[in-house]
Amino acid sequence: MPLALDAAAQDLLFHQAHTARAFTDEPVTDEQVRAIYDLIKLAPTAHNSSPLRVTLLRSAEAKARLLPLLSEGNRAQTAAAPLTAILSLDLRFHEKLPKLFPVVPDLKDLAYADPEGRERAGLLSTGLQIGYFVLGVRAAGLAAGPMSGFDAGAVDKEFFGDGRQRALVVVNIGRPGDTAYNPRLPRLDFDEAVSVL
Amino acid sequence: MPLALDAAAQDLLFHQAHTARAFTDEPVTDEQVRAIYDLIKLAPTAHNSSPLRVTLLRSAEAKARLLPLLSEGNRAQTAAAPLTAILSLDLRFHEKLPKLFPVVPDLKDLAYADPEGRERAGLLSTGLQIGYFVLGVRAAGLAAGPMSGFDAGAVDKEFFGDGRQRALVVVNIGRPGDTAYNPRLPRLDFDEAVSVL
Repeated sequence: MPLALDAAAQDLLFHQAHTARAFTDEPVTDEQVRAIYDLIKLAPTAHNSSPLRVTLLRSAEAKARLLPLLSEGNRAQTAAAPLTAILSLDLRFHEKLPKLFPVVPDLKDLAYADPEGRERAGLLSTGLQIGYFVLGVRAAGLAAGPMSGFDAGAVDKEFFGDGRQRALVVVNIGRPGDTAYNPRLPRLDFDEAVSVL
Repeated sequence: MPLALDAAAQDLLFHQAHTARAFTDEPVTDEQVRAIYDLIKLAPTAHNSSPLRVTLLRSAEAKARLLPLLSEGNRAQTAAAPLTAILSLDLRFHEKLPKLFPVVPDLKDLAYADPEGRERAGLLSTGLQIGYFVLGVRAAGLAAGPMSGFDAGAVDKEFFGDGRQRALVVVNIGRPGDTAYNPRLPRLDFDEAVSVL
């Protein structure tokens, strides 16, 4: 038994889970979203910087602002999804570091004063958190449909007009519909991805 | 019950798990590493691009090449860890796309010809996979100690002399030792990280 995680959890998070492209109309509750956040906020980021911001599009008006900015192939599934979230990087995430990393009170200036280096570091940690978020959605018994096919500059302008956030992934969330899943694509073999020195 | 994931799995992956800074000398087996990879390779990346590469430092010689390139505060824990991995971005990940995304055979050129855009996209998807990897280590009943405190340029030169990979995170892996854990740092409240439109 090389894994300690039980088989049901492995199935829920990895083996049976799959990027969803169609959803039922069963709503995703605020309670579920809060439970997902409270779970995934615990997983690590560099300096505990936690740069992920989640913008939930609950209203029809908010969804309508997003749809034309998506690649055509992503519009119908997003229009039909019970909940859609924009996952973004807060470019000024370092302002929260006095709370998040109080052991080094001036870390914000020591390590993150340079906007370019800060964005690069933030992109990586937001990436980690997007990974946690996708698994968190699955942990709630829901399916996630993460998408990178959208006009990121236009989404930033439409939703983050103050220039503070960068949209990285849009994710649909809900119960998978009948036509939710494409066949799983191949993955790299162990030896293609892992080397031993 | 807003989460479907059972409580034991929640504890193993999130609530009880914690970045480890000290380890016992119990070895991490090849079977465990393979099980971790076979689990986390299934989780999604943009266009299934799977740009994460894992370099396991099994030999004392390999470990010795890394130690001087780490921040001083990361050296002792890394020297003592039973296994250390360099997690890197393959800057030429697009060459694997004909295998990984056969539905669009020329995606490699259509979407990823530009090295700068490719690196940015790869950084995000590698971030997702580093998040999955950390949770995969925990799924194996092990503790992960991910670190960003190292001279990335020097690690790239030492381990990836062909310029093909960018080291992003170094992670120690093993059973947590007695002094493994610092107190958990604060996290952002729901309303600081999540907004609803």
